[in-house]
Amino acid sequence: MRIARFSIDGNVAFGVVEGEPSDQGGPVVDIIKGHPFAEFERSGQKIPLSKVRLLPPVLPNKVIGIGRNYAEHAAELGNEVPDVPVVFFKPSTSVIGPGDPIAYPSFSSEVHHEAELAVVIGRMCREVPRERVADVILGYTCGNDITARDAQRREKQWARAKGFDASCPLGPWVETDIDLERAADLGVMCTVNGEQRQLGRTSEMVRSIEDLIVHITEAMTLLPGDVVLTGTPAGVGPLTVGDEVAVTIEGIGTLTNKVIKRG
Amino acid sequence: MRIARFSIDGNVAFGVVEGEPSDQGGPVVDIIKGHPFAEFERSGQKIPLSKVRLLPPVLPNKVIGIGRNYAEHAAELGNEVPDVPVVFFKPSTSVIGPGDPIAYPSFSSEVHHEAELAVVIGRMCREVPRERVADVILGYTCGNDITARDAQRREKQWARAKGFDASCPLGPWVETDIDLERAADLGVMCTVNGEQRQLGRTSEMVRSIEDLIVHITEAMTLLPGDVVLTGTPAGVGPLTVGDEVAVTIEGIGTLTNKVIKRG
Repeated sequence: MRIARFSIDGNVAFGVVEGEPSDQGGPVVDIIKGHPFAEFERSGQKIPLSKVRLLPPVLPNKVIGIGRNYAEHAAELGNEVPDVPVVFFKPSTSVIGPGDPIAYPSFSSEVHHEAELAVVIGRMCREVPRERVADVILGYTCGNDITARDAQRREKQWARAKGFDASCPLGPWVETDIDLERAADLGVMCTVNGEQRQLGRTSEMVRSIEDLIVHITEAMTLLPGDVVLTGTPAGVGPLTVGDEVAVTIEGIGTLTNKVIKRG
Repeated sequence: MRIARFSIDGNVAFGVVEGEPSDQGGPVVDIIKGHPFAEFERSGQKIPLSKVRLLPPVLPNKVIGIGRNYAEHAAELGNEVPDVPVVFFKPSTSVIGPGDPIAYPSFSSEVHHEAELAVVIGRMCREVPRERVADVILGYTCGNDITARDAQRREKQWARAKGFDASCPLGPWVETDIDLERAADLGVMCTVNGEQRQLGRTSEMVRSIEDLIVHITEAMTLLPGDVVLTGTPAGVGPLTVGDEVAVTIEGIGTLTNKVIKRG
């Protein structure tokens, strides 16, 4: 099931996306009564997807990123695979939705795309044992861990380099029908202006989703809607104003954002 | 004016703290009508401070910490003063209030106190020019940037070491009558079980509050209630279960928390 969050006529709602772009009239959104983090019903009130504005599929309290979780990507930036996962935060103010612009930050001249599988947490949890990880996951979406690479090199901690406004596109929706086994072998692709830049599979991840959730929740509570970005495959590279960057994950969909000049 | 957030009979409210512990009956809280981030009135309904449970004075969307902002503290851990401020996040799930317990985290055996002046942001802002910094500050409170020092050494990014649950005590209230000039020369003290461990003055800060707010908001939007921790003076050291740690800042008050075994 694909759960989208969207605005229509000034209201925000959640809905289940049904159908494919090839269908007559295109996909529709069946508005949800209730909240996707609890039990909910579909209203049966269906709106063409083309008539709504998709928003970030969740409003995370925090986004947790993982650095250097694909060996080939670590190597391309001259880094080794770390002994302990590299864990960092992206704040809620960095989150944007599908189609939202990425405003090029003033303090950087080297902004990179990083296509990533994003895990959406479904329930409050801490100290999650490995065998319970599946229970705390609502589903998966596409993430782009936009990074000011020059600031990342200069600044010992990455709060500015990876936490600036609009540095965390998420979407287009949360796919809940993927289980952990399938999530561990999904294709992850990034294109810029239609040209392929990154291509990898989540099977290349150094630490599995289970490893990461155990490691993170050993220290901190995760809340419904929190997001874990699982690291990026090789092929990261610069974005410039005017570029259209798209993250596609097998079985989920495509998250597209355009880079604009900061106003 | 000292603005506290508290619970009484299961309700959460803001109030203005009046009087001193030496007053007959002790200080009282005058309940606020409205919200302290907007214009508000005092209700005149006064409750003895001893009858309420103080909560974190704000619920930050994010807490931004600054590493190595006192030269003597940087030196005591064998670090140099960095060329660029070291900026990191503590998530909202790390925030606790005065009197709340600090549960010793399972992944560390070296948890340190770090007494810090905490700046409370009063309005949504980004790209704040130096001369407007005063306008975006609501006031100041005491902060304790509790740090798992062993994890901080092991892990390249500090999300777990400085972001674990209960690692961000804040309180006891927000003092709004301190201006930037006065904030730049306040005594900061930390005691453990009544014994002095840290003693410094904010005048020793490498980067001023103005520098920090300009630097942070160059990258990201701050929201009302967000908190900037301004770094800790020398004298950091370990806490053990049973310890009572107190941060006192001149002109603000004292924030006390007890370290307990994680349940």
